[in-house]
Amino acid sequence: MILTVTLNAALDITHHLDRMRPHGSNRVRAVAQRAGGKGVNVARILHALGHPTVVTGLTGGLTGRAIRAELASAGLADRMLAIAGESRRTVAVVEEDAGDTTILLEPGPVVGVGEWARFLDHLDTLLPHAAAAVLSGSLPRGVPEDAYAHLLRLAHAHGVPAVLDADGTALSTALAAGPALVKPNAEELATATGLADPVAAARRLRAAGAGAVVASLGADGLVAVTPHGGWRARSPERLAGNPTGAGDAAVAALTLGLVGGEPWPDRLAEAVALSAAAVAAPLAGDFDPALHHALRSRVDVHPFATEESDPCP
Amino acid sequence: MILTVTLNAALDITHHLDRMRPHGSNRVRAVAQRAGGKGVNVARILHALGHPTVVTGLTGGLTGRAIRAELASAGLADRMLAIAGESRRTVAVVEEDAGDTTILLEPGPVVGVGEWARFLDHLDTLLPHAAAAVLSGSLPRGVPEDAYAHLLRLAHAHGVPAVLDADGTALSTALAAGPALVKPNAEELATATGLADPVAAARRLRAAGAGAVVASLGADGLVAVTPHGGWRARSPERLAGNPTGAGDAAVAALTLGLVGGEPWPDRLAEAVALSAAAVAAPLAGDFDPALHHALRSRVDVHPFATEESDPCP
Repeated sequence: MILTVTLNAALDITHHLDRMRPHGSNRVRAVAQRAGGKGVNVARILHALGHPTVVTGLTGGLTGRAIRAELASAGLADRMLAIAGESRRTVAVVEEDAGDTTILLEPGPVVGVGEWARFLDHLDTLLPHAAAAVLSGSLPRGVPEDAYAHLLRLAHAHGVPAVLDADGTALSTALAAGPALVKPNAEELATATGLADPVAAARRLRAAGAGAVVASLGADGLVAVTPHGGWRARSPERLAGNPTGAGDAAVAALTLGLVGGEPWPDRLAEAVALSAAAVAAPLAGDFDPALHHALRSRVDVHPFATEESDPCP
Repeated sequence: MILTVTLNAALDITHHLDRMRPHGSNRVRAVAQRAGGKGVNVARILHALGHPTVVTGLTGGLTGRAIRAELASAGLADRMLAIAGESRRTVAVVEEDAGDTTILLEPGPVVGVGEWARFLDHLDTLLPHAAAAVLSGSLPRGVPEDAYAHLLRLAHAHGVPAVLDADGTALSTALAAGPALVKPNAEELATATGLADPVAAARRLRAAGAGAVVASLGADGLVAVTPHGGWRARSPERLAGNPTGAGDAAVAALTLGLVGGEPWPDRLAEAVALSAAAVAAPLAGDFDPALHHALRSRVDVHPFATEESDPCP
C-alpha cells in the first residue's frame, strides 16, 4: 500500500452561491464538505485508481471527527492519530456567476511535544506495510520545523521511498534527509532556491539531497530533473477548471511510477494526464476518468540535456 | 426560567484576518466559534444578567455537537432536541483593516416530519417550567411554515406568554396565534405589512393578533405599540460597533419586562440600553455591562397617541 501523511489535515468546506457580496450577508445555496489536506487528496486519487492506500496524519476535536467520518464514507483506510487540538477548516466560497472562488484557511491546531513523539511511534508501525510514503502539505504549529526530515529518516530506516510535497522551511530542512522525489510548484521552487530558471533550481534541490525533482509549472506542464536525465512534459490541451488538487494528482501519478519502477517519460505522461483530469473536476482529490484516459497517450514528453553542475557555487 | 427556542441553531464561526482578498487564498489569523441563532443569543444575554434560562431547539450532526459543547462551556442549560440532519454554520469574516465583516449563512438541515412532532412533545415537557418563551429566528427546512403558530398555541395552552422575533411567512402565519409581543426590525415590519410608517405597520400587526409590537429601527431606536399606549425610545448616544445581536438584546430586555410586569417606559429604556450595550460588544449575545448600566437611566422615552384604528381597510 501507499501511505500518505497529512500532518495538518483539514475539513474542506465548499459554499456555493451565485455571487458573494463582500461586507454583506450572503445566503449559501449549497454546502459540501470532505476531508482534505494534500495527502488526503493524493490518497483519494490513488484509491479511485484502485491502489491500496492508507491515510495517516494528525486530527483533533469535533472537526477532526468530521474529517474521519468523511474518510470512512469515502472508503479511505484511516490511521489518523488523534490529538487534543481542533483540526482546521478551509472554506472555499464558489461564486457561480463570477466563476471564481475565495478561500479561507484556518491556522489549525497546535501539536504538543508528546503528540509529535507519539506520531513518530505511530508512523513506525505503519511504514513496514508501505511500498512508498507521500509526505504532503503544511506543518501544523508545534511540530518541529524539520518535521519532514524526521519522517524521511524514519521511512529510510524501513527502506520505504518517500515523495515530499512541501515548501519553505519544511522543504529546505528535509532535502538532506534524501526524499526520493520532491514536487514543488514554480513559486515554491523559486522561493526555495532564489533561482528563476526551473531547471537550474531543480538541479539545486537535487544537489541538496533530493533524488529527483519534478516541478509543476501550471499550464507549462512539468519539468523533471532525475538521475536518469531531464524531461519536460506538457498537456496537448489547455484546460480550464479548478487548479486546486492538480499538484496532488501529479504526486499520486509520480508515486505510482516510483513504486512500479516505470520509465520516467511514462511517469511524467501519466502525471500530466492525471493533473489535467484533476483540473477538469470540481473538487480537489477528484479527476475526470474519461479525460485521464484520453490524454495519457497524447502528452508531449521531451528530454533535455541535464548537466548536473550547479551554476552557482 | 425563561425558555428560548432556536429551531435553526447555528455554529457561529468568526474568522479574523487583516484583509480578505476576494477570489484569492486568505490565511485566517484567528478563529473563534460559539453557539448561535437568535434564541441562543437571547439566552446568553439573559444568563449574563443572572436570569435562569433554558435553551431549546433543534441541533444535529457533528456541527450540532459543537453547538452543544459550546453551550455547556458557556454554562447555558441545554435542552436541545437532536435531529438527524447537520446543523448549519455561519462564517463571519472580520477584516481588521477594513473594519468590516462578510457573513456566509449555510442553509441548515432539513427537519423530518417525525422530528418536528417529537419537538412539539419535547416543548410540551419544558413549558410547564417556563415564565415566558422566546421564539426567535429563521425556520429550518422541513418544519411547517406556520411552525411558530404551533409553538404559540402550545405556550398558550400552558399559560406561558411568548415573545416572537421572526419575519416573512414565519411571522405572518403566527400572529393569529396571539404572541404576547413581536419584535420586527424596520425592514421586516415594512415587508410584513407593506406600510412604510412603522407606527401604522405596528398597529396592523396588533390588529392581526400580536399583543404588543416593538419595532427596532436601528439608530432611530424602538417604536412600541401596546395595549397601554405607544412610545418611542432612543439612545442618548449614537454608538458604532456590531449591530448583529442588538435585536436579540432588545428581545431579552423586553422579555424580562414582560415577566416582571414592568411599566412599558421602563421596559423600553432597558431594551434600548441593552441593545446599545450589545452594539458595543464584538460578538452577538454579548454586551458591555458598564455601558448598559450607564445608559439605562438616560434613554429618551416619549409617549405618542395611538388611535388603534387602522388607516387601511
